[in-house]
Amino acid sequence: MAGNSIGKLFKLTTFGESHGVAIGGVIDGCPAGILLDLDEIQKEMDRRKPGQSAIVTQRKEPDTVEFFSGIFEGKTTGTPIGFAIRNANQKSKDYSHIKDSFRPSHADYTYFKKYGDVRDYRGGGRSSARETACRVVAGAIAKQALQGISVHAFVSGVGPIKLEKPFDSIDFSKTESNIVRCPDQELAAEMENYIKQIRKEGDTVGGIVSCVIKGVPIGLGEPVFDRLHAALGHAMLSINAVKGFQYGSGFEGSEMKGSQHNDLFNADGTTKTNLSGGIQGGISNGMDIYFDVAFKPVATIMQDQDSINKEGQAVVMQGKGRHDPCVVPRAVPIVEAMAAMVLLDYTLQNRASKIEQY
Amino acid sequence: MAGNSIGKLFKLTTFGESHGVAIGGVIDGCPAGILLDLDEIQKEMDRRKPGQSAIVTQRKEPDTVEFFSGIFEGKTTGTPIGFAIRNANQKSKDYSHIKDSFRPSHADYTYFKKYGDVRDYRGGGRSSARETACRVVAGAIAKQALQGISVHAFVSGVGPIKLEKPFDSIDFSKTESNIVRCPDQELAAEMENYIKQIRKEGDTVGGIVSCVIKGVPIGLGEPVFDRLHAALGHAMLSINAVKGFQYGSGFEGSEMKGSQHNDLFNADGTTKTNLSGGIQGGISNGMDIYFDVAFKPVATIMQDQDSINKEGQAVVMQGKGRHDPCVVPRAVPIVEAMAAMVLLDYTLQNRASKIEQY
Amino acid sequence: MAGNSIGKLFKLTTFGESHGVAIGGVIDGCPAGILLDLDEIQKEMDRRKPGQSAIVTQRKEPDTVEFFSGIFEGKTTGTPIGFAIRNANQKSKDYSHIKDSFRPSHADYTYFKKYGDVRDYRGGGRSSARETACRVVAGAIAKQALQGISVHAFVSGVGPIKLEKPFDSIDFSKTESNIVRCPDQELAAEMENYIKQIRKEGDTVGGIVSCVIKGVPIGLGEPVFDRLHAALGHAMLSINAVKGFQYGSGFEGSEMKGSQHNDLFNADGTTKTNLSGGIQGGISNGMDIYFDVAFKPVATIMQDQDSINKEGQAVVMQGKGRHDPCVVPRAVPIVEAMAAMVLLDYTLQNRASKIEQY
Amino acid sequence: MAGNSIGKLFKLTTFGESHGVAIGGVIDGCPAGILLDLDEIQKEMDRRKPGQSAIVTQRKEPDTVEFFSGIFEGKTTGTPIGFAIRNANQKSKDYSHIKDSFRPSHADYTYFKKYGDVRDYRGGGRSSARETACRVVAGAIAKQALQGISVHAFVSGVGPIKLEKPFDSIDFSKTESNIVRCPDQELAAEMENYIKQIRKEGDTVGGIVSCVIKGVPIGLGEPVFDRLHAALGHAMLSINAVKGFQYGSGFEGSEMKGSQHNDLFNADGTTKTNLSGGIQGGISNGMDIYFDVAFKPVATIMQDQDSINKEGQAVVMQGKGRHDPCVVPRAVPIVEAMAAMVLLDYTLQNRASKIEQY
Repeated sequence: MAGNSIGKLFKLTTFGESHGVAIGGVIDGCPAGILLDLDEIQKEMDRRKPGQSAIVTQRKEPDTVEFFSGIFEGKTTGTPIGFAIRNANQKSKDYSHIKDSFRPSHADYTYFKKYGDVRDYRGGGRSSARETACRVVAGAIAKQALQGISVHAFVSGVGPIKLEKPFDSIDFSKTESNIVRCPDQELAAEMENYIKQIRKEGDTVGGIVSCVIKGVPIGLGEPVFDRLHAALGHAMLSINAVKGFQYGSGFEGSEMKGSQHNDLFNADGTTKTNLSGGIQGGISNGMDIYFDVAFKPVATIMQDQDSINKEGQAVVMQGKGRHDPCVVPRAVPIVEAMAAMVLLDYTLQNRASKIEQY
Repeated sequence: MAGNSIGKLFKLTTFGESHGVAIGGVIDGCPAGILLDLDEIQKEMDRRKPGQSAIVTQRKEPDTVEFFSGIFEGKTTGTPIGFAIRNANQKSKDYSHIKDSFRPSHADYTYFKKYGDVRDYRGGGRSSARETACRVVAGAIAKQALQGISVHAFVSGVGPIKLEKPFDSIDFSKTESNIVRCPDQELAAEMENYIKQIRKEGDTVGGIVSCVIKGVPIGLGEPVFDRLHAALGHAMLSINAVKGFQYGSGFEGSEMKGSQHNDLFNADGTTKTNLSGGIQGGISNGMDIYFDVAFKPVATIMQDQDSINKEGQAVVMQGKGRHDPCVVPRAVPIVEAMAAMVLLDYTLQNRASKIEQY
Repeated sequence: MAGNSIGKLFKLTTFGESHGVAIGGVIDGCPAGILLDLDEIQKEMDRRKPGQSAIVTQRKEPDTVEFFSGIFEGKTTGTPIGFAIRNANQKSKDYSHIKDSFRPSHADYTYFKKYGDVRDYRGGGRSSARETACRVVAGAIAKQALQGISVHAFVSGVGPIKLEKPFDSIDFSKTESNIVRCPDQELAAEMENYIKQIRKEGDTVGGIVSCVIKGVPIGLGEPVFDRLHAALGHAMLSINAVKGFQYGSGFEGSEMKGSQHNDLFNADGTTKTNLSGGIQGGISNGMDIYFDVAFKPVATIMQDQDSINKEGQAVVMQGKGRHDPCVVPRAVPIVEAMAAMVLLDYTLQNRASKIEQY
Repeated sequence: MAGNSIGKLFKLTTFGESHGVAIGGVIDGCPAGILLDLDEIQKEMDRRKPGQSAIVTQRKEPDTVEFFSGIFEGKTTGTPIGFAIRNANQKSKDYSHIKDSFRPSHADYTYFKKYGDVRDYRGGGRSSARETACRVVAGAIAKQALQGISVHAFVSGVGPIKLEKPFDSIDFSKTESNIVRCPDQELAAEMENYIKQIRKEGDTVGGIVSCVIKGVPIGLGEPVFDRLHAALGHAMLSINAVKGFQYGSGFEGSEMKGSQHNDLFNADGTTKTNLSGGIQGGISNGMDIYFDVAFKPVATIMQDQDSINKEGQAVVMQGKGRHDPCVVPRAVPIVEAMAAMVLLDYTLQNRASKIEQY
């Protein structure tokens, strides 16, 4: 499992199980001299944290980040930023029923088979989405390091309910005004009701988070294999429960003709349309970058499910503990965090592209 | 542009512009002792090559691979496999019109801005899909190294025409029986006609390539950031013209409920359904892996388009040279190649996961 | 400063400044299933810790490791092992005199110039050798994961006093029997006296740590750029104060003739001599690996030295705080730790070399 | 054998066996806009090539580099530079005697054991020093990309004959004035005679190459594990036949006291002495960087040696073909090439260290 790092020059390595001592990480390659607003970081953490509203899990998880290093007198020093978030108040007993049995569509079975009979089964252990808290820490720092680039994620789908507006007609200032994090207030209310109903059924539902990145300079992206959108896709697909990624025209673009799809230039190099999604040939062209991320329904449901144990015997399992009926409201800050990290990493990489930049 | 490598233990690095001296690459980390069938490699090249049928570009490109190293008496030696494919017969003059002007939705403008005024503009240079020939070479070798794993890509969409069958009802032996590479013969004929009509209009169209991987052992995939599907997504999104990736239930999965989506276990650890797409928690669970890759329409169309030149002056551009009206038939072997490389890389990585494997 | 990781499959990333909140690290890629003896880890820490004897710094540094993750019911789970060691009891005031002035032959000046005026100057911050405590943690785990391989470092030089014995005549069980960690008791006494005298003068002295690795299987090492000895050299040269590395015949070998230097084979593939130092063509040949690491004298001396401040004005500096008069006794476990990590990393890498190993 | 790449942002990957079709490589991450002098590259190749003088191997090896990509109208484009050097005129039959037997102190035995019975035994295959020709190509390009930094290697030892002058009293313009490449003409004559005598005996001898890098800006180097000297050491230890590396005061520094060894500052931040070797805390301080590289005697000698074959039976082997009696004259450009690559890589990396550099 040597896959716990992401990024090349701005690199995050995370550790931790949901019910171990702590989760945390190391941010390596953060440039020196960034004045950090620690309250802003905590604010991002609060957007992700359980118990923040009526439609998310009511677990209480402490989300207080302790920074160990790399910050001095309020500024980044260029040295690695180590941090941890303690686990506490876990109801580990809630998980004794999964010690020897496998929850459907969870990682219990695959971890068991891959690593042998030594996994920390409590709460999913390493495969728990609690790990994403560390991403939000690093993303919050990346956001502060990015200059002139802003990242706006929002919920654009809950189950069958979809926000169909073009991305450039959306008022991002509305995203945080409701607990679903959908910038359309009416649709948000509909989504909220739907989630509540689903929860009442002991069920869960999937959804879509969309993201728009504004203010991206021209030139970010390293072809061939490290195209900017390939890095964004990789980052998004590494988030728990994600099943798909599309940017610009996406899957719909596959139905179009070239004469419809091509983005014609204005005299200043901007384009009249933006089906390219702000990236051409893997390199940002200065237009807004936008993409969608599909999340499956949470696998833990409050209904009886047939399953098996280690011996292959039939068992009946029912979700215990407190779980999200729909993951997308809390996924919004995670998507933003991953996007911010990728953008900062590629900003740093881009400094090496031209000889004149010496 | 330090992004020309992919893979961690089985690693491909490519080089080359479409109208330079040659394209090629280095495969590093190929295990020793694989008996290579060079004819099989050429066969894969032929599936990708231009001029193979009436619905692809009629360019003649030599696709003969010369191997420089790493193979001795027919077997891989464990040392790097260097290879090159010469460029020849390029009609470079076809491209003089784009020396100072930017084709819409191509990489001309972004390369110009990123690297300065030093790009090889001919045929798109490094951003040309000719680069993917090198991927097919490496993928063909990966296929031969994979033991018991088979990779089956096929065209599942051309513009609005879609193959809607469930993946496990598809007869992959039919894929190569038509020039579209769609395993449904009737639909293939429809797609073929559509592509021909589009070409007649001087236009192009997008499409979808789907892929099924069979025989995957349990345990491939390195959480957290290197989940198997994140690596597959990254690989696919690095292919020219790709706009989206989804695996398992994909974007549709985001509309479902957990009670519908969860894959219940059989006694032997297989699952009754496979909405997970063969991967749980980023690790293969032994079921078939399947995913879709969306391709935009080729940007070069045979119609006049308004554009600009370096000075920002208005110019009219028309596609010259010989181009594909639809890229997906030739993309099928490329998708397979990338998938095979990822699978082999993760097979090698997985050997390090357990202490008992010493 | 994105250089805080070492290793490819068994990878350590460290963080922390000497007078910040904590130092620590993440070990990624440790195979699952290793039963860890935590007391053994602490024992290694104690070999490195300040205040352990009369000839090392009398600073009191807490060296208690807190493990955050990756270990469950005493065994490694294959997930990343996060850990931290709190800093406490630092006499930060000891360092106020270096806030604006540069200590000769320290990293104060270069950090100031590289990162700008934001460094944590206290105790050298990130450049302090306190960072090496994290290496000892990871090395202690690597030692327990290595099967049949043992690593034996010892002091072979203190200033001009040298241990001249051939490495295979040394009794490693004697290394820990004296505070210098030189396995020759008489020479150790001489070295101890020399260090005490040097300290009385307010001075410091350099030295040499040698290391022998026994039980190495044939086949570790990845030519061309990742030769086993290149990785060992890199690892050793990354330790604070190291000025040189040689293995096998080393610098003396450069004076020899081929007819003297070649190691002739026995019938079983072992060699009659071992001037190769257990590595041929970058790959271990099953013989003992041995090498020497040269350490410069500690830069902090208790004597007045002319120096400059940020404004380039002349200042007089004198070492304050409690420092080592000679670093090599405490460097012994650090050299062992780095060697163990390299060997484990290459053991894991080697699993990917042959097709038969699937 | 996934170890065929070096560098992080300026990265060289090489391929090729000494008696295969060709050797070559890919340079990835070379910044765009460098006007390349191809004659200068060939001149560096000529300094390395066999047959150049009476004291090196009289093999004729074609050393003509063919560039495949990455250069357009004389300038680097920022895309990967692929290149190959064909092998020709190899007397492969010279090597039939080593097909089944192992030459002492060569890599024959270790390759056989690591990769299985599939190695290209001819001329050492991948382990041949012919591979270093590719390094000289990349190094020659790196030299041209470096601005204001110059790299000066020279022979400072042949067997017991040593150049004992301080490095800053050496006139580097004399290095190429004799075939040994020792800048002291008298000593060079003595070395030349010694090498000729050794060759007459059918023997070989080791030596030392020293290197001085001038004009290095302050700030190159990425602590902790990627200290500048650790990267230089790694690069040098990856060259065939190298047994040791020391920089600045080196092994001698281990005998000194701190009061002797510390480099006191001048008002401008330069230092009065330079025992640090231009690097403090792993970061360049603007003073000259200097280091020594120890080479063992060439293993192929023209004398009978007892050895074994695959079955462990005793055989007598004698060197055939045409080999160097002493490797250091031809190693001078290789050491320079590796140094130039490291310096360029760290120049690019350093651009990411400060926020102000955006």
